[in-house]
Amino acid sequence: MAPAGPPYDVNEQTGKDMDRARAATSIMVEEVRNYLYNSAEEWTKRRKILEVLEKDPVFDKSQREFMSRTERYTRGMALTNRVYELEEQHGWTQRDTSMAIAALDEQLPIGLHNIAFQPVFNLQGSPELVSKYGALVASRGILGCYLQTELGHGTNVGRLETTATYIPSTREFEIHSPTVTSSKWWIGALGKTATHGVVQAKLILGGKDYGPHLFFVQLRSLQDHTPLPGIVIGDIGPKSGGGFGPTDNGFAKFNRVRIPKEQMLSRFAQVTDEGEYRQPPHAKLSYGGMLYIRANMVTGGGWLMAKAATVAIRYGTVRRQGELGPDGFEKQIVSYPSTYYRLLPILSHAYVFIQLGKQLTKAFDTMASRLANGDTSLLAEMHSTTSGLKVLVSSTGVQDVEIARRSMGGHGYSAFAGLGRLYNDYLPSVTYEGDNFVLDQQVVRAALKALKTLLSSGAKPDTSKLSPSSYYLRLLVPSSSPAKPKFAPSAEEWLGSPSIVVLLLEWRAALVVQELARNAKDLDASVFQRVSKAVAEAFVARQVGDMIDGLKGKLSSGKTGEALTKLFTLYLLTTVEAGLVDLLSFGVLRSNGSGDVSRPLRLAIRKSCEDILPEAIGLTDAFGFSDWELDSALGAYNGKVYEALWNRAQAEPLNQTEVPEAYERAIKPILQRGQRQAAARMAGKAKL
Amino acid sequence: MAPAGPPYDVNEQTGKDMDRARAATSIMVEEVRNYLYNSAEEWTKRRKILEVLEKDPVFDKSQREFMSRTERYTRGMALTNRVYELEEQHGWTQRDTSMAIAALDEQLPIGLHNIAFQPVFNLQGSPELVSKYGALVASRGILGCYLQTELGHGTNVGRLETTATYIPSTREFEIHSPTVTSSKWWIGALGKTATHGVVQAKLILGGKDYGPHLFFVQLRSLQDHTPLPGIVIGDIGPKSGGGFGPTDNGFAKFNRVRIPKEQMLSRFAQVTDEGEYRQPPHAKLSYGGMLYIRANMVTGGGWLMAKAATVAIRYGTVRRQGELGPDGFEKQIVSYPSTYYRLLPILSHAYVFIQLGKQLTKAFDTMASRLANGDTSLLAEMHSTTSGLKVLVSSTGVQDVEIARRSMGGHGYSAFAGLGRLYNDYLPSVTYEGDNFVLDQQVVRAALKALKTLLSSGAKPDTSKLSPSSYYLRLLVPSSSPAKPKFAPSAEEWLGSPSIVVLLLEWRAALVVQELARNAKDLDASVFQRVSKAVAEAFVARQVGDMIDGLKGKLSSGKTGEALTKLFTLYLLTTVEAGLVDLLSFGVLRSNGSGDVSRPLRLAIRKSCEDILPEAIGLTDAFGFSDWELDSALGAYNGKVYEALWNRAQAEPLNQTEVPEAYERAIKPILQRGQRQAAARMAGKAKL
Repeated sequence: MAPAGPPYDVNEQTGKDMDRARAATSIMVEEVRNYLYNSAEEWTKRRKILEVLEKDPVFDKSQREFMSRTERYTRGMALTNRVYELEEQHGWTQRDTSMAIAALDEQLPIGLHNIAFQPVFNLQGSPELVSKYGALVASRGILGCYLQTELGHGTNVGRLETTATYIPSTREFEIHSPTVTSSKWWIGALGKTATHGVVQAKLILGGKDYGPHLFFVQLRSLQDHTPLPGIVIGDIGPKSGGGFGPTDNGFAKFNRVRIPKEQMLSRFAQVTDEGEYRQPPHAKLSYGGMLYIRANMVTGGGWLMAKAATVAIRYGTVRRQGELGPDGFEKQIVSYPSTYYRLLPILSHAYVFIQLGKQLTKAFDTMASRLANGDTSLLAEMHSTTSGLKVLVSSTGVQDVEIARRSMGGHGYSAFAGLGRLYNDYLPSVTYEGDNFVLDQQVVRAALKALKTLLSSGAKPDTSKLSPSSYYLRLLVPSSSPAKPKFAPSAEEWLGSPSIVVLLLEWRAALVVQELARNAKDLDASVFQRVSKAVAEAFVARQVGDMIDGLKGKLSSGKTGEALTKLFTLYLLTTVEAGLVDLLSFGVLRSNGSGDVSRPLRLAIRKSCEDILPEAIGLTDAFGFSDWELDSALGAYNGKVYEALWNRAQAEPLNQTEVPEAYERAIKPILQRGQRQAAARMAGKAKL
Repeated sequence: MAPAGPPYDVNEQTGKDMDRARAATSIMVEEVRNYLYNSAEEWTKRRKILEVLEKDPVFDKSQREFMSRTERYTRGMALTNRVYELEEQHGWTQRDTSMAIAALDEQLPIGLHNIAFQPVFNLQGSPELVSKYGALVASRGILGCYLQTELGHGTNVGRLETTATYIPSTREFEIHSPTVTSSKWWIGALGKTATHGVVQAKLILGGKDYGPHLFFVQLRSLQDHTPLPGIVIGDIGPKSGGGFGPTDNGFAKFNRVRIPKEQMLSRFAQVTDEGEYRQPPHAKLSYGGMLYIRANMVTGGGWLMAKAATVAIRYGTVRRQGELGPDGFEKQIVSYPSTYYRLLPILSHAYVFIQLGKQLTKAFDTMASRLANGDTSLLAEMHSTTSGLKVLVSSTGVQDVEIARRSMGGHGYSAFAGLGRLYNDYLPSVTYEGDNFVLDQQVVRAALKALKTLLSSGAKPDTSKLSPSSYYLRLLVPSSSPAKPKFAPSAEEWLGSPSIVVLLLEWRAALVVQELARNAKDLDASVFQRVSKAVAEAFVARQVGDMIDGLKGKLSSGKTGEALTKLFTLYLLTTVEAGLVDLLSFGVLRSNGSGDVSRPLRLAIRKSCEDILPEAIGLTDAFGFSDWELDSALGAYNGKVYEALWNRAQAEPLNQTEVPEAYERAIKPILQRGQRQAAARMAGKAKL
């Protein structure tokens, strides 16, 4: 009689389970993939670029988890060099190259040149400066960084301490760091990479402080890369959990460094030779760059959630645990309610944020082309929308990656699972480009302003002037408002009426904003977070409602459209669930005194998950990630997670010798001392 | 006119702010410290041991954040060797040494020997085996590990695949790993350190599977530390975010390894020479060890939260950001409501879990002494209590460390902030010693069982038999229950009546359990998490109520008692806030239809925080952490966070050369290619 293990080969079964799940998918995976990538052509283009990377040994990832910080940095620069080499070889467009860099899934210093330095230089440099250096910047003949944050100050640029004092006699600015805390700090690519930078410093003219302005400063020699005289530069050290390892976030201290007057970025603010200040005509024109980064964060966050969902759902499909069922198998862990309840909402977030990101990029392009003509009318709305969405996408993304990691139990904690790396790289997104807690206040301020404008517009307020980000406020105008819903929907109603769910989320936002306005003088301590979230979620809910409507007739396969509709509906339902406290506190939903008023919603969520579950592998396959991209033993496309873990462990540096270096130095002394003490103890006992 | 920076020296001000906050504290810090450490003697003893460590260069932490995984492991073994050297030199007791090891704040392989291997060996080994190896185990003349989890199975030990087949002819067991997935995996100290292990394997007698049993197996040679024949051993590779770096979590595959029959741990289950199985008389007696680890996790989690709170509150006290106030200073960030609302609850969690841990350890000792006499009556209650608290402390701890880290904005992401390391080391606590999602089910099962027992005990159920963990169920028995509260307390009432807050949390637990029992056949997907949390929090709330009562007359200073009462009350209020959905869904709290019914509670929390804030530095100083212990630039005792960050950055390995290795290999080629392309571009333009 054979020893009783599980009555099947656990390792072989992983592959079979994945094949079976894939075969059972009823949606058209390719059609969904094209929906996500906008078209089959886009997808094919991306795939071709990725194939170049995947077969190139420079981009091998097998040693990455074993590297020291310095090795991660060195490797990152080598990847960068190779990408631009390939760009030349293959004649890639700038967009192709950006796609390649994004696909590397590494936080590279070149990102700061491309996204933070170059746009600011081009947008705000004078035409003369841009014509002198623009080609070098564009070709990376110089490498730049953007020096804003200081050791002592971050969010509020008005308090920065670095000075740029104009010296009329020589037509120079003197860049100076007067204190330790004025050292530039956290500046990506500054530590070891950048040759030049745009420095934010307080402009001093005739002893008077004109506030922060931008200056183009050479930092390192183009001959030998050594820092220029008067500038102390270095790397600020490792980051939490090894995040951003390849990026040399750096510091710089300037000791009265002189630059020619022309190197002030003076498209919008100028200083005459005599030292007179010339007011910028459109100060706001300079905001565009930050909004662009925030808009991109929505797309990036969506794809991040897509990775987390793909890895965890694949692992959940092949990992079996628990008692043997009637089929003689343990259950797939993804089939446990407590698991799919955690994972499928992440899948829905991914789809929603990817789609939102596309809309936002379009809206940004419209705004940018108007800005180019001096029209700032769309700026405020763009600012308010991107603030709220930046908070929502970054806090949701960080949370989702960890939920996905945790759903994988013990193996989720292995570096080979891949989600720890994603987490630690994404973690600072809640802080950079506007700390979420500061942005919350800006969202709230915009909401209060919109409310005030609306209510002060006479006896019959004109709701048609409400922008998309404050559209929910129409509910507070009695004449134009649908009746305030006060009902207890059944599970079927929750599932079948996305438009009512959207309306509920809009009511929630309207009521918390109204209450905030009423209590403005006596606020509780978490109200900005609560209101900002409600406002952003109301905006997103309406967009999701539109996404559902937009699916009709768009997809050839009914099953596919149905699955996406269910996924978007799940987004709405779980958003309501997370916002239940507000709906209950304001009496939009009310307990009838017997039992749990939230139960029908919760059952609807379960039903929704059960409907989506059979399509989960198809819906994650549609993201189109290759194994190289995911770099996760647990997210292996073929499902063979145990083989992958085993193989990756063999490469661990500690395994390259049977006996570790620590043996002679420490383990042997511990054992010998212990053996001596034990012998003494035994001898002592023997004597007694 | 001097250039306008902040009108004070930002760096100098940090020290002044810390001094001022410390001077403003009105509580007796030493008295609170003694309360936390149980007595002045305990504190003094600990301090003396720490002083030995702090001045010993072996325990220097300055290079830790720069080390590779292998270096972290090697350093960890060196620390261990040094601690036992000091034990001999100073004549430390076992308890002293444990204290020293805990103070190192490193995840060391020796922890697995001391906590996982040794107790199991001593408790479950036969008297003969213990007498043969006990002294070696106690003195670490051999180093052990506990091999349970396998690559393919974790939580459910019944499904493990490793076999131990008895061979009567030679009186041996044959330990065998029949499949890849049966490899032991994740075993702490197995990879490179342990010489011996306790292996959990399915006992096979005459072809019949008797389920998992324990076997004592030598893994490595005591001569040269090489693995013994038939055993493939290695390290499983790095963990998420560099967590548990010094621990060699390992794998082992056994190829028909023979051990003498005596090496079965046979205190509770035996095999005769002929291969007959002898039933264990008290199988449950072997559970003790796991419960001990869980009980200890409550204390450990409390002190972890204490560290996070200390670092973040200190940084929040000296970090100033924002507009200049009327005093000419920017505001201390801890004074922003959105900051103190995040940090002070963490402080309250720390105090609560430290106190809870003490109670739990006492309860464990009582249970253990009864167990030693074969009395298992306290086991079920201990199991249920520790399950719920393990979930609560680990999920709260992980969350709190991240909330604290995030509250520090950009600098919180630096490895030098220290909280990233704490986070990544603590992260697996939500999975190990029982995955939280699995334990939730056990808490729920115990609650349902207690409810059933209560309700089936006749027309007048006897609530006096309810154990502490199910005491809240008394509320469901009409005769003994205080009237179900249905009210909308004012902010003052929330603040002034902790006993009512406790009662509300008990009502919440009672109602969700009752509802669960009613709907047992049609559950929603997150109900176990929701119910388990409500049950555990009801238990803790009552304990916290007792802690508040216990303060009366215990402390000499009225101010001190007042501050602790407020802190414990804040714990209760924020717990209610987090559980509002339940209270509202069941109509215990109800909207009156106008405005926000949760507002008085939220205002009470704000008031509570404002009252505690001036004591926050005193309440964190009372934890008594030294700078060496915290190892955080942002948690510096003297408040000089900017100097600390600057100094630590200078030691970064990348800063040891002005020009990085990557320059010749990658940066120079990038720059040269770019310069060539730019020249071509300019030449092209010139031609046009």
